[in-house]
This record gives sequence, C-alpha cells and structure tokens, in this order.
Amino acid sequence: MPIGMFESFMTSYCFSDDAKRIWNDSATLQAWLDVEVALARAQAELGLIPASAAEVIAAKGQASLFDRERLARDIAFSQHGLVPVLHQFEALCGEPAARYIHWGATTQNIFDTGASLQMAQTHRLLVQGLDDAIAHLSRLALAHKASPMAGRTHGQHALPTTFGLKVATWIDELDRQRQRLAERFAPSFPTLLGGAIGTYGATGAVGRAVEQRVAELLGLQANLMPSRASYDRAADYCTTLGLLAATIEKIGTSVVLLMRTEIAEVAEAFHLGKMGSSTMAQKRNPNTAMSMIGMARLLRGRVPVAIEAMVRQDEGDGSASFVTDVLLPDIGITALSLVAFLARLTQGLQADEAAMRHNLGLTNGLIAAETAMMRLGLEIGRPKAHHVLYEAAQRAQSDKVPYLTAIQEHPEFRHTPVPDNLPRWLDPETNLGESVALTEDTVRRVAQRKG
Amino acid sequence: MPIGMFESFMTSYCFSDDAKRIWNDSATLQAWLDVEVALARAQAELGLIPASAAEVIAAKGQASLFDRERLARDIAFSQHGLVPVLHQFEALCGEPAARYIHWGATTQNIFDTGASLQMAQTHRLLVQGLDDAIAHLSRLALAHKASPMAGRTHGQHALPTTFGLKVATWIDELDRQRQRLAERFAPSFPTLLGGAIGTYGATGAVGRAVEQRVAELLGLQANLMPSRASYDRAADYCTTLGLLAATIEKIGTSVVLLMRTEIAEVAEAFHLGKMGSSTMAQKRNPNTAMSMIGMARLLRGRVPVAIEAMVRQDEGDGSASFVTDVLLPDIGITALSLVAFLARLTQGLQADEAAMRHNLGLTNGLIAAETAMMRLGLEIGRPKAHHVLYEAAQRAQSDKVPYLTAIQEHPEFRHTPVPDNLPRWLDPETNLGESVALTEDTVRRVAQRKG
Amino acid sequence: MPIGMFESFMTSYCFSDDAKRIWNDSATLQAWLDVEVALARAQAELGLIPASAAEVIAAKGQASLFDRERLARDIAFSQHGLVPVLHQFEALCGEPAARYIHWGATTQNIFDTGASLQMAQTHRLLVQGLDDAIAHLSRLALAHKASPMAGRTHGQHALPTTFGLKVATWIDELDRQRQRLAERFAPSFPTLLGGAIGTYGATGAVGRAVEQRVAELLGLQANLMPSRASYDRAADYCTTLGLLAATIEKIGTSVVLLMRTEIAEVAEAFHLGKMGSSTMAQKRNPNTAMSMIGMARLLRGRVPVAIEAMVRQDEGDGSASFVTDVLLPDIGITALSLVAFLARLTQGLQADEAAMRHNLGLTNGLIAAETAMMRLGLEIGRPKAHHVLYEAAQRAQSDKVPYLTAIQEHPEFRHTPVPDNLPRWLDPETNLGESVALTEDTVRRVAQRKG
Amino acid sequence: MPIGMFESFMTSYCFSDDAKRIWNDSATLQAWLDVEVALARAQAELGLIPASAAEVIAAKGQASLFDRERLARDIAFSQHGLVPVLHQFEALCGEPAARYIHWGATTQNIFDTGASLQMAQTHRLLVQGLDDAIAHLSRLALAHKASPMAGRTHGQHALPTTFGLKVATWIDELDRQRQRLAERFAPSFPTLLGGAIGTYGATGAVGRAVEQRVAELLGLQANLMPSRASYDRAADYCTTLGLLAATIEKIGTSVVLLMRTEIAEVAEAFHLGKMGSSTMAQKRNPNTAMSMIGMARLLRGRVPVAIEAMVRQDEGDGSASFVTDVLLPDIGITALSLVAFLARLTQGLQADEAAMRHNLGLTNGLIAAETAMMRLGLEIGRPKAHHVLYEAAQRAQSDKVPYLTAIQEHPEFRHTPVPDNLPRWLDPETNLGESVALTEDTVRRVAQRKG
Repeated sequence: MPIGMFESFMTSYCFSDDAKRIWNDSATLQAWLDVEVALARAQAELGLIPASAAEVIAAKGQASLFDRERLARDIAFSQHGLVPVLHQFEALCGEPAARYIHWGATTQNIFDTGASLQMAQTHRLLVQGLDDAIAHLSRLALAHKASPMAGRTHGQHALPTTFGLKVATWIDELDRQRQRLAERFAPSFPTLLGGAIGTYGATGAVGRAVEQRVAELLGLQANLMPSRASYDRAADYCTTLGLLAATIEKIGTSVVLLMRTEIAEVAEAFHLGKMGSSTMAQKRNPNTAMSMIGMARLLRGRVPVAIEAMVRQDEGDGSASFVTDVLLPDIGITALSLVAFLARLTQGLQADEAAMRHNLGLTNGLIAAETAMMRLGLEIGRPKAHHVLYEAAQRAQSDKVPYLTAIQEHPEFRHTPVPDNLPRWLDPETNLGESVALTEDTVRRVAQRKG
Repeated sequence: MPIGMFESFMTSYCFSDDAKRIWNDSATLQAWLDVEVALARAQAELGLIPASAAEVIAAKGQASLFDRERLARDIAFSQHGLVPVLHQFEALCGEPAARYIHWGATTQNIFDTGASLQMAQTHRLLVQGLDDAIAHLSRLALAHKASPMAGRTHGQHALPTTFGLKVATWIDELDRQRQRLAERFAPSFPTLLGGAIGTYGATGAVGRAVEQRVAELLGLQANLMPSRASYDRAADYCTTLGLLAATIEKIGTSVVLLMRTEIAEVAEAFHLGKMGSSTMAQKRNPNTAMSMIGMARLLRGRVPVAIEAMVRQDEGDGSASFVTDVLLPDIGITALSLVAFLARLTQGLQADEAAMRHNLGLTNGLIAAETAMMRLGLEIGRPKAHHVLYEAAQRAQSDKVPYLTAIQEHPEFRHTPVPDNLPRWLDPETNLGESVALTEDTVRRVAQRKG
Repeated sequence: MPIGMFESFMTSYCFSDDAKRIWNDSATLQAWLDVEVALARAQAELGLIPASAAEVIAAKGQASLFDRERLARDIAFSQHGLVPVLHQFEALCGEPAARYIHWGATTQNIFDTGASLQMAQTHRLLVQGLDDAIAHLSRLALAHKASPMAGRTHGQHALPTTFGLKVATWIDELDRQRQRLAERFAPSFPTLLGGAIGTYGATGAVGRAVEQRVAELLGLQANLMPSRASYDRAADYCTTLGLLAATIEKIGTSVVLLMRTEIAEVAEAFHLGKMGSSTMAQKRNPNTAMSMIGMARLLRGRVPVAIEAMVRQDEGDGSASFVTDVLLPDIGITALSLVAFLARLTQGLQADEAAMRHNLGLTNGLIAAETAMMRLGLEIGRPKAHHVLYEAAQRAQSDKVPYLTAIQEHPEFRHTPVPDNLPRWLDPETNLGESVALTEDTVRRVAQRKG
Repeated sequence: MPIGMFESFMTSYCFSDDAKRIWNDSATLQAWLDVEVALARAQAELGLIPASAAEVIAAKGQASLFDRERLARDIAFSQHGLVPVLHQFEALCGEPAARYIHWGATTQNIFDTGASLQMAQTHRLLVQGLDDAIAHLSRLALAHKASPMAGRTHGQHALPTTFGLKVATWIDELDRQRQRLAERFAPSFPTLLGGAIGTYGATGAVGRAVEQRVAELLGLQANLMPSRASYDRAADYCTTLGLLAATIEKIGTSVVLLMRTEIAEVAEAFHLGKMGSSTMAQKRNPNTAMSMIGMARLLRGRVPVAIEAMVRQDEGDGSASFVTDVLLPDIGITALSLVAFLARLTQGLQADEAAMRHNLGLTNGLIAAETAMMRLGLEIGRPKAHHVLYEAAQRAQSDKVPYLTAIQEHPEFRHTPVPDNLPRWLDPETNLGESVALTEDTVRRVAQRKG
C-alpha cells in the first residue's frame, strides 16, 4: 500500500520515473552489491583474496537473487541494515567464496560508496535535464530577444527590457548552477573504503591500493582520507542542489507572476482535459510552475538538514548517518523531478508580445523616466534632472495626468524651453539598452560552454 | 562606530526605538541587577541573608553605577560574562553586604531570568503593536466590506470576493497569533533560580521558596523545575514569533502584489520626499511592505536556530546558551520592529475600489463560472454543468470570445434552451457569497476578544 | 518497488505501522470520502440536497470501491488530484445522486478537512505514545531518585545530582510538549469548507451552517473563517511537533553520551542478535537512540518548510498547498515513529548506579567546590570563599593533588584554621540539594495532569 | 548605547576586530564611495563624463567628509539608503562635478559592488585564519601521529586510531573548505553595474565597457549579466561558509567531547583568571570550543535565509535585497570571528597521551575485535570468525570477563586450539592501520597546496 509522495496515486506522477529507477530498493541493493563485487575484484587483483572467490562473488552479486522480504524482517530484528544482506550473500556464494565477502569493510563503506554510484547516475540525468531546459529557454530567448516588455523592480514598472533578456537571465543563472554541479560532482561522491574507522585497520597499506582500484572500477574518485566523520563533500553537492532549487523556484515564481490574469504575458502549455479546479470551470492554472515551486521548497528545506549532518561525533556517528542514508535518496529523487518539471515548463511556455506591449504602455511614459533624466541631465545636470522628473512623476501619479504634460508644466520649464525630444525620450520602446546584445551573448556563451 | 543592522546609519530607522530601549547594554545589565536585587530581597525575607545586606544590594543595583568599559575588558580577559559584573557589584556594595550578592546562584540563573524580564517588556509592546495593526485593519475591513474585487487562486481570477473580506482574513490570522502569544508568554519566560545545575544545591529546600518569592517580586512565573538543560519554553515563544512573522510576511506579500502596476488595487502611504530609486524618478515602491517582508524572513530564519538550541548536553551546555544569549535580544528587537512596520503599513494603506472593479471585469464573465455551474447544476446536475462550463470556458479563452457567447454556443444548448438568467449569473457582483457577513463577524469577534 | 524511507526494506521497520495505517493511500482516499459523505449528509439535513442522494453518497463512499490505478493515471493526465476521484465517485453513485457530490466544495476543502481527520488519529496515538514514554520514565525516575551521579555543565563535572532528577527533567519537558499538543490540536485542524475561495460563494449563508454540521459529524472544530490562504493553524501544530522532536533529540543525545564507553552510566536494551557492526563484533551501539536522534532531525528540518508554507498569495496558492499536501503525511508519520522510538528506548533503558558513583568520585572532591564555597562563605564571605576555592581548584588540577590538600595548603589558611567540616563538605554524596524532592514532585505532578 | 552582539560589553570580545574594521558604518560608506569613484574614473576614461569631474569625485569620495548623523536622519525620512548619501556627495563635489556622480547607476549597483569589495577583504582574512588554524593543527597532528587512542563510532570504542589521524581528518576537511572558498570567491562577488534593471539602459553599449573597467580598477570580476534578480553567486559563497561552519562546529564538538571529565584526552588552553563559573570554583570549561560551536550554529542558521533570498521577483526585489543587505555583513563578521576562534583554540589545544592510553585499555581487549576477526577469519572464514567473536564479545560484556577469556572459552574452541597469537591480536596498540601514513600524507599534501 503506497505511502509517501513518491508512490502515492496522488503525487507519484510528479516524480521522475528515471529517478525512481535509480533509487528504488532493488537499485539500492544492487549498488551495494556492485561495491562489494568491485571490492572483491580489486582485492583479488591485489592478492588479498583468491581470484576464484572474487568470481563467485561477482556472479552472485545480483539484487534479483535476494529475498527482500526476508531481508526486511532480518533487518528489523538485528536493527542493522547490512548484516542480513551479507548473510544472504554468503549463502548465495557458499564456501569458500563466502568468507571473502565484505573483506576488511564496514557497513558505512558500502552504504556511502553505493550512494556515490547512485548519485553518479542522478548527476548525469540532472545535467541532461538542465541541458534540455536551457535549450528550450535559449530558443525562447532568441525568439523574443527584441520583444519589449516592462522591466519591474519591487513590483513597479521600472524601465523597459525585453522578454528575451528576462529569459537570458534565467539561462545565465541555470548555466552557473549546471557548471557548479559539473565541477563539484566528482569530488563530492568519492569512494569510502577505509574500513571501520577510516584507518584501513583490517587491511593496512594494501587497503589504500584497494581503494584506488575500486574507484577505477566504479568510475569514482578515490578517497584519500576515507573518514566516516567527514560529510562535507556530499553536503557540498546537496547544498548546490539547494541553490539550483532556488533558481528554479525563481523561474517558477516569475511564470506564476507573469501569468496573473491582469498581466497575462506568458502562459503554461495547456491541453484540453487539464483541470484547474474541481469547482471553477474556467481555471487555467500555472499547475506545472506551482508544483515546481513547491518541490523546490521541499528541496531547499533539505539543505540545512544535510549541513547539520556534517557535525559528527568521533570516528563515526549513526545519528548523522541515519539522516544522510535517508536524505540522499530523497534529495536525489526530488532534484531530478524538479529539473524534469523545469524542462517540461520551459518547453511549453508561451509568450504574448501583445500583452507585453499593452502593459508597457500602462504608465503613460513614466517607465521612461530614467531615459528622460539621463538626457535632460546632460543639459541641466543629473541631480537637477532627477529632482524635476521626480516632482513631475509624483504629480502625474497624484493628479493622473500624462507624464509628458506633468514635465512640460513643471516650474523648471516656466522660463526655459522644454527639450524638443522629450516625447521621444518618453517612448519606452526607444530605450531597451543592451537587452538584445546581452540576450544574444548569453545564449551564445552558454551554448559554447556546453559544446 | 556602529556595526550591525540595529545601529547602522543605513538601517537603524527600521528598528524600533522601544525595542532598543529594552535590549541595549544598559537595560540588559539592569535586568541582571534587578534579578540579583530580587534574589537578595527574597533571601532576606526568608532569613537566608541579613535584611541590611539586601537593602544595600538593592540600593547599589543600578546599571548607571557600573563602569561598562572596564566590564567589557574584564569579560574579555576572564571569558566570563558575569563574574566581572559581580566583582564591580561587590565593590559598590562593600562588606558585609558584598558577601551576600549572588547567594546560591549561578550565571545562567541571572541571564535567563533577566532575559525573561526583558521579554516581558517586549511582549507587552508586541501585543500593543498588534492591537494597533488590528485596529487599523478593522477600520479598513469595515470600510470596504462590500467592495467587490477579484478573488484569486494560483494567480488566476477565481471567484469574486470583497476587499473587506481579504483584510478580515488578515485580521483573523493576526488575532490568532496575538492569542497564541498572550497564552504562551507567561509559561515561556519563568524564573530560573535552581542554582548551578537546577538542584538548589547551594540553598536546599528554602531555595524553592526563594524562587517562588523572586517570581512574585519580578512578576514572572516561578519555575518548578529550573533546569538549565530545558529550553523548550523560550523556544516555544520564539517559534510562535516565527509564525507571526510568516503571517506578517503574507500580508506584506499581498500588498506588494496588489500594488503591482498592472493591478494597482492598493497603495502604501506616500509622502513627498519618499524616494523609490536613485535613478528612476517615477518610482513609488512598496518600501514599507518590502522591508517588512525582509525583516519577517530574518525572524523566520531564527526559528530553527532557537529550536536547535533546545538540544543540550547534561545539566548545562554553553554551546547552546551562547546561541540563546545572543539570539533572544535579536529576536526581541526584530519582532518588535516587524510589528511596528505592520502597524505603520496598515495605518496608511489605501484601497482603490475603481481599480478593483476594473480588474473584476477583465475576464468578461469567466470569474463567475462557479456561480453559473451551481445554478445550471440544479437543472442538469453538477457534473454535467461543470463539463459544459469547462468546455465553454476553454473556448472563451482560446478563441477570445465572451464567456456568455461561448456558453450559448455550446453543443449542450443546441436542442435545449439557454437559461434566461445566464447573463445575470455571469455578473461577478451578484455573487459575493458571505463576504460581508464574514467580514463583520470577524471584526466584531476580534474586537470582543480584546476587550 | 518500494522507494522512500517509509517502505524501503532498509528502513521501513523504523516507521510506525500505526502511522502507515493512518497515512497510506487507501486511508487518505477514505478520509476524503468521509468528508464528501459528511458534507452530503449535512447538506441533506439542511435541505440543500435530497436525503436520498446523501444516502447513496454515504453508501458508495468506500475507498475499496475505487480503482486506484486508474486514479493515478487520470490524475497524471488531468494534473489534478481530486477531479478523477470525483469522476469515479459519480460513476459509483449514478444519477441522480451523482450530481450532488462535492456540492459547493472545492478540492482544497476536501484535502485539508481530510488531512484534519488523519491528523486527529495521529494526534491520539502521539499522546498515547508520550503517555507510555512518560510512564516508563516515571518508573525509572522513582527507582533512581536518590542515586547520586555527577551533574555536568559544558561537559565538565559541576555538582552532584541524582539520576532520578535527570530523568525527571526529561519527564517535565515531555509533559509540557504533551500539554502543548493537547491544547493546540483542535484549533489547529478544523474543517475548511468555505468553497472555492472561502466566501461560501456557492452556498451562501447556509454554507456556514453546513460547515458547523460537518464539523460535528467529523468531530472537528468548525472553521469560522475558512480561507485557504491561512495556514497558521496547521503550521502551529507542526512547529510544536518540531519542539517535541528537539526534546526527544535531547533525550537521545543524553543516552548516547551517558552510554559512551568511558562513562557507561546507562545502556540501551540489548538482545542477542542485535548487531552493532558488520565488522566490529564487540559493538553494542545505542542504535535506538541514534536512529531516534536522526529521525528527530528530519522532523525538526520540516519546521521551517511548514512555516514558509504559511506565506500564500491571494485567496489560494498551489505552490504552498503542494508543499503542505505532501509535508503533512510526512510529518505525521515521522512524529509517530519518533515517539514510538522514544517509548521503546525508555522502556528498556538500564541505569548502572555503580558506574555513576565511580564517575562521581573521579575529581577527588572538586565536584563539591560549590558546597564548600557556600559553607566557607558563611564564615569569610562568598566572594573571598570563591577566590580561595578557585585558586585551590586550579592548583589541584595543575599539580594533580586532591582538592582537600590544595585547600588546606592555600595561603588563606596559613594563619586561620581550616574548617573541621571541610572533608565532609567535599563528599559529593552529602549534597544532592533538592534532587529527591524535585523528582518526586515532578512525577506526581505529571501523573496527576494525565489523570 | 551598544545593542546587538557585535558591540555589547558582554559579547563584543567574541567578534573579530578585523571584521569590525571591514564592516563598520564608515567602512561601508567608504566601500560605496570607492565604487562611485571607480565608476566616475572608468566613465571619464571612456569619455562619458569629463575627466575633471572624475578627479573631483575621487578627491571627495572620503567617508570622513560625510555627516553620518545627518545621513541617518535623511535616510529615515526618505526611506532610501543611498539618495541622501548622493545629496551630501553632490554638495561636497559642487557643480559641475556633482552632476556626474552616480552616472547611469542605480542604488543596488553601488550596494552590491561595495559589498563585493568588503567581502574581498573578508575573504582574504578568512583564508589567512584558516591557514593559521591548519598550521597549528598540522604541528599537533605530526606531534601525535603515532599516539594511540580509542577510535569510536556511535560513542562506543570501535578500533584503535591515533590522535594525529583524528587531527589530520580535521585538517583534511578544513583544507577542502579553504579550497572551496578560494575557488568560489571571485565568481561569487563580481561587480553589478548594469544600471536600474541590468539592461545598461542609461549608458548603452559603453556601459558594458565601463563595467569591465570598474572591475579592473576594483580588483573584482566583471559581471557579464548584471541582473539584480540573480543572487546565486553570493548565495553560493555564503552557503560554503555554512559548510565551513559545520566543519568548525564538528571540531569544537570533538574538543568538548574529548575534554569531558571522564575522557580528559584533550584540554583547552587555560590561564589563571579564566573563569568557568560564578559559583563552581573548580570549573575549567571548554569556553572557546563552546562559543565557537554557538557561533557556528548562528552562521549555519543564516544559510537558508541566504538561499531563500535568491528567489526574487521581476528585475529587482527589495524584500530580498533588504535581507541580503543586512545578512552579508552579519555573515562576514560571524565567519571571520568563527575562524579566529578556531585559530585560537587550535593554537592552545593540549593532548594528554597518558589519558588516551588509559582509555584505550578500558575495554580489556574488545576494541581489537576486528583485528582478531580478520586474523581468525583467515583460518575459519570471515563470517564464522565474526560469529564467534560476536558471541564472545557479548558474553565478555554481560558477564564482565576479559575478552581473551571469553574467546578462549567459546564453544568453537572446545575441539580446535585457540590461536597462539590471540593475546597479541587483542593488544590495541598493535593495530593502528595506516594512521601514521595517512597523517603524514595529509599534512604534506595540505601544506603543498598552500605553497
């Protein structure tokens, strides 16, 4: 009977199938077995255990051969997550191979190295998902690189910009997150094979060579100091996912905002049959964006828990590793699902240029106040120009007169002539600054980085 | 040279002067002395120390008599926050009174009981500030109890409501927070006078009587189990302040949203000379709401730190009390300043009924879809009505036709007549539900609670 | 294939079966149906819908009649969590009853009221679990009320206490948490039946009467202001669970600390077959305490997410309700499981009085320094006594001489006689302060509250 | 009157003077002026403004020339943090230079670029402080590279290790944090000079060249996409400081733990006059470690607030920038002070090898169980050896017999001889694994990285 958001009939569709393939029980068990197998292989190569034993161990290291229901019962009884796995594994291998399973290793070695394998798969898909989203957004940015819209700060019209530039800002930030993840993945998830407390107490000097070799076999970095008391590496990657979540949440927030009934500058993809409400038939809600925001908050909320789990006592601390053993799958699945949401949202996003233009005109010139100030400032100085335009702008708003009129009627121009170009300066579409160039440069730069 | 947000020339105006009076160094020192004096008085009454000693201690327990610069130096040298205070206090009192200062007490007894005194002052002002804000909002709610506006869910027009009801929802939530604080204050900040580890080791049975008497003298609850290892009480009040912060953040977020250029249904108070931008002369920003939101996030961010500080080792844990010794003033000042922002914002808030009506009409009837469905549902059943109105609504949006037309042209009505009342059902102002009554009831209920 | 900690073969045993019964998919669906049924019943009683329809709706409102696999598919397609449920429900009821299902309601009405029902079950079991834990601890406290042990602050021996008092401190704090939950449950989880945006837009004045009646039928408080934009109530209960988590984490931390090899004053229950390590055969680890700590951190980590979810836009905000729809089950299951851990841990906890006595003697008298100071202070004044005993204590530690010797050899006693009683003052077992009385009083007080 | 932890007489000594020099009001104002001056210089070089104006601006850009009290008043009135600064600056420069101040810039350009300058100074000192701490720890690690001590997991003796290796683990983790900060600083704190909304609306294409030139003049990276809506860069560095805090907290926690009265393997530096308690004369507390832990928690607690501040609306969002404007100084000062604590603690830390040896012997051989298992496993297989040693270990603990005896008396050896080497295998000092080599390698590796 499903429990929990990943599998519930209500929410399971929100979570990536790929993610579930990587992190389900069978996959986790397999990751552990992969580590045990690689360990045996490396130890056989280095002469610690017989080659024939390693072969048997490799042959039997298949999750499908295990009785997971009995595992669950035995784990509950022994209160230990790995010992029952080892017992079944030993029975599968039989003597004499059985005696070489888990040679010189401790549980957390297997758990953490296995998790590194699962995170490697997760990381690959995360980067792919980000690539997809960035590609969708790049198309959108170029298509609208010169589409004027109101730039806003603090919710108020500020200065004109283009929709392309807004999207380019998202691309720029997503690209940085992608880079961070790419740079940080390998050092964040190395092997952890130093034995019970990281001293290679059971295997000595050769243990370090084994760790190197296992790392090669598994495609991970070897851990030069495999202390179970250090969790900064994984925590670093997890907090970077928290940063990614915040970026995605920002994009989702923008979509919800720009899709508000009064603004209506963008819209999520819609298909007949998509439901907004059980009672309000008209509703086209930003479903994807909203779920994406919600999921981003869940992921952000994991960051402090991951960081706190770095604070560990002595050479190993089960209260911290309990947390990370369950947190990492949770973070992995949520992050992949979040990026899948982003890819879906960006693929279907619609922009309405007419609505943007309409909104841009709403303030009747006020949005171009800075342009007017800079031009007027060349003649009467920036401070005085700011003062004049400030007073006129406040009057325009209080008395609801066009900004042009309010400027023309300002006392400053009682004795000096109003500049001829003033009406043109107040046309928002004449001043998009470097919007187009910044958009193009960003899309190009980001595309190159990937290639 | 000011450092830190409370005193910096940039931000000091954001923080309540009242709060600073309660929590500045002089006030904190005085709170400690007040506890030492009450302790001496109670001990004299109960015969532990001579009455004359208590009198001298009371006479000299004035923060103004202390050399705070020397205190700072001695505290730095001894790495102890109270011992240097006691040394100066002893010198001020002279023998024999000096020997009875701090009788049977430990540092944290004085710090925590002193903090309770400061929190009591903070709490009184918090409740006053909330009373003020609720009074401002109540006036606003009643004035606009029947002013129709678009109710929105997920950023999309949903159903009509009134501005009064929106404000009443804020009142309702603020009132609950006020109640929570009122109910929780006294048990959250009792005395803490059990001596070094809460066993009354230095004073025995009479120590418990002393604690009772000190509590009466200071107007606090007596602590029946004065363990330094328990911090759940203060943490409870602090997390309740975090809930209050979230409520206030929600109100601020609503104001910023409703003040967006395209919506413009409310506006913050404005005065000539208030600046929106150093470069954009036209800007009237929701300054107060934005700072309020920012401050609310700072306060919310303290909650997990306060809760974590409950996890303490043994009978006392300086790593946790270091946190709370600095966190409590920080939380106290921030909370009071936040409520002051709320009172200011709500006092000056302007509502624009015309803009609300304008926005309500934007969807050309779609906002009344539920009303139409419920009426039509009486005739053809709710599920079928929802289906018809869903299809018509999607067509209205895709083809940009009025909702009325889209419904009239729906295949359902090819053979059956369109209900005569349909145009009236689609008038948003005909269905405000219980908005007016809920608004009136809430304002009345909340006002009664206070009285 | 299980995914996620609640069902994984590795960790499912850590999570309460009771909790899973309350929160699995079938139970959640049933909770929704219970709300729909109560709604129909109340509406029939109040004449909104035919009584016969309500009867059919009640008869078909059984989760077992639904096709959950198809639900999952339809929810994924419609991106809506309830509409497909309603469609199946309508088909089950048939006309004419079908048309009266979900009359005047919106999705979140059903979700939030259903969650309140599930939280009511959760709350009952939480309180039971706390009752059990407190009962176990009360036995332990009374059994060891006078067993002397070292009281410690900042990790250093401070003053003697008793093990009973330490346990009583836990009881005292747990009891406050239990009280908080009991007081806060009902107002935290009321009904939410105001329709789409909380105006009773579909049903008007009678809608409020319906809400009252549904509340009675379901055993919940009626919501006087059923706004979907207010989440402070549930958030309040959830943060209180965060406080409870911190208390339980503190108890777990104490157990781990006191069970350290060098201290060994307590031990978790052990059974042959319980495994400490896959490689270190000797290990008896504080498994239960460690998992409990880890789980408490997971729960604490949810608090800020719950509080942030109070900040909602307009009359409803799917980004926030997405969070709470998945967070509440997660919090409910984790909290119940955490309390089950606590009950198990406290039931089996062993105390070793001999080890306590041994540790109490480790400092050779230093732990009684305050006692000596208070007695000596009666003769030479507290400040001077503190000074003499400070110097002697530092010498005892630096030169490794017994405290008695260091005091006797202090310059202060060059010309004045050393008090005869000094050796007795330095006996830690002579000064347990009010430990026994505080223990007894607490156990009695807490037991009375329950009864 | 001091308010807030940085300046209060109670806690100001805990906060780094260097940090206060970087972040006090005067320094902040100077950082802003430095940006305005660099902007004018770059604009003069590129022909936007007259060279003579830039010279005057540079000459008057001195914080000491400003009236900060008037600034505070004007900022309070205008509710704007920079406009009053500009007004004073204009008055200081006089016409015509005044009109070229702040040319094409907006407030947040100055605030964020100024903060980057202050963070650059902070970063340099952070790295220095970490260098110092690592140097102290490296000396300690080498001195004790072969000093045997008990390795512990879950609070229980696990396997022998050396104190040097424990310290090397800290070094290894601190070194990673240092590297992260070094790699991340420059991209985290670039210039931000794109004007009001990042479009270079006021200056166009040349504005981008100006940004490049200002970056060179100030020693910062130029921002290629200077959007005020992107805060991921600074947030990345801040969260990395959160990771550093967790590492330092872990070290502090270890010190407090190892300094517990019963363990006593390390001690903080002590000087006569350092006070542990106002009532317990004997106390030598881990003051520095505890304050360090507390401060680390404050810093960790800022991380979620910084990440949340990345979620910004539109092209600029004052609710988020309010947060970061006050958070960044707070984080900067706290981080520097935390690292100063670490340097002080590590410089004075004392290790007691005799105590370590004493504790290592406490379990009478049990701590060597894994060694015995691996050796015995070569003969009878690892699984069987684990089983025998598990049963013997449990009996040793339950019946309190030496491990050697319990093994010898195990049924396994009823018919087969006990290995001769068993007593040697159970000597903890014979198996330190790779402790010495790992310690040496780490110290060497880390030292090389720095050079």
